Amino acid sequence: MTCYWSDNKYTILLIVDIKIIVKIKIAVLGTGIVGRTIAEKLDQLGHDVTIGTRDVQKTMQENEAYAAWASSHSNVHTMPFVEGAANADLLFNCIGGMVTMDALNGIGEKTLGNKVLVDLSNPLDFSNGMPPSLGVVNTDSIGEQIQRGFPNLKVVKSLNTMNTALMVNPGMLKGDHNVFVCGNDEASKNTTLDLLKSFGWREDLIIDLGDITNSRGTEMILPIWLRLWGALGTAEFNFHIQKN
Amino acid sequence: MTCYWSDNKYTILLIVDIKIIVKIKIAVLGTGIVGRTIAEKLDQLGHDVTIGTRDVQKTMQENEAYAAWASSHSNVHTMPFVEGAANADLLFNCIGGMVTMDALNGIGEKTLGNKVLVDLSNPLDFSNGMPPSLGVVNTDSIGEQIQRGFPNLKVVKSLNTMNTALMVNPGMLKGDHNVFVCGNDEASKNTTLDLLKSFGWREDLIIDLGDITNSRGTEMILPIWLRLWGALGTAEFNFHIQKN
Repeated sequence: MTCYWSDNKYTILLIVDIKIIVKIKIAVLGTGIVGRTIAEKLDQLGHDVTIGTRDVQKTMQENEAYAAWASSHSNVHTMPFVEGAANADLLFNCIGGMVTMDALNGIGEKTLGNKVLVDLSNPLDFSNGMPPSLGVVNTDSIGEQIQRGFPNLKVVKSLNTMNTALMVNPGMLKGDHNVFVCGNDEASKNTTLDLLKSFGWREDLIIDLGDITNSRGTEMILPIWLRLWGALGTAEFNFHIQKN
Repeated sequence: MTCYWSDNKYTILLIVDIKIIVKIKIAVLGTGIVGRTIAEKLDQLGHDVTIGTRDVQKTMQENEAYAAWASSHSNVHTMPFVEGAANADLLFNCIGGMVTMDALNGIGEKTLGNKVLVDLSNPLDFSNGMPPSLGVVNTDSIGEQIQRGFPNLKVVKSLNTMNTALMVNPGMLKGDHNVFVCGNDEASKNTTLDLLKSFGWREDLIIDLGDITNSRGTEMILPIWLRLWGALGTAEFNFHIQKN
């Protein structure tokens, strides 16, 4: 916003940069690198953020990397999954795809209610060695499992197709690249869109694929992502959908 | 190449544009839009091209679109799979992924020998309605099935991640976009690379993922490709791997 006052002698110019943040109560599920990166960014943006783990005491005692991170991010309180979720209006699921349903069942339908859940997980299954396969695939996906298990929850799948650092800093790559969203509830997709924009994503680079069944497509990108990581020798790349 | 002769009175300038095509005997398997597009391009490039089908007489009588195409592409002889393959040094597999092994078993190991087979197929399974799922997926792929079934064949997976028109005309899209190759035999990948370059692919946009197990990754891109087709309202798009 630019205002000015002027008389015959002086002109006073006032430039005001107003950023309106709708502060949201957010619980980030998962204390790994994805959860920490998302929680830090949401905190920097001024949201009311907690980070959830199964057993707070155990995490603080046994996970040195997390304990160190937590002590330098005192705004972000570490909470048991269920308490964090209960106090939040929006959840970010940043735990592994293969343990997601377990964790959500632990929180319970009553607590989850009709909150928005942004699901970043991938069903990577390392039980048969490297490269991992997908534990849920092809005719189903983690996004769909969550939505089916908790019909009132508003599940939006997003950000699961790229390296963590890029999620909250898309400008790291010089050229254009895309983030996908899908989900059944338009209002929740719009909330997610606003959060993505606040992370630095240009609106025209956010592709809405449609309903939650599109999670299949985004989760099934993981196998080529993993191989590209090897072939390119860096995880700092992303998919760009090129069209005229 | 530019040459000139000069004396005191005249300068004669000779500009010669030399294009060396190593003419290859190629059998394209499949009379669908992919097979026709690839066969036409290879013929235009000066190769010795046949196009293979299970039953030539039946195809000519019952497939009007193909019969019309064949009559306007008289250089490209239509042959039974086995005869076309027998006369060729290199095969392009342009039939559906779910019927590929049947067709190759029909040709037989003796005829296939140690030829190069460029596999463009995807295991789309329409038997459970739309959207199709993948009939082979996750811990296996059509590329791997072919290589396992015919260990002497030099299988190179490529071009299966985009719309047909783009395969032979990447310049249709203004920006950069990629084609993937993978396979176990380096010489065959180089032959494929040369063919891709002759189709118009810039060498730095051809990504070698590694061995044939990478077919999983490229085949598993299909589900999101199909959904993007719907979301973008056009099939004229392709994946570009954005990196610094």
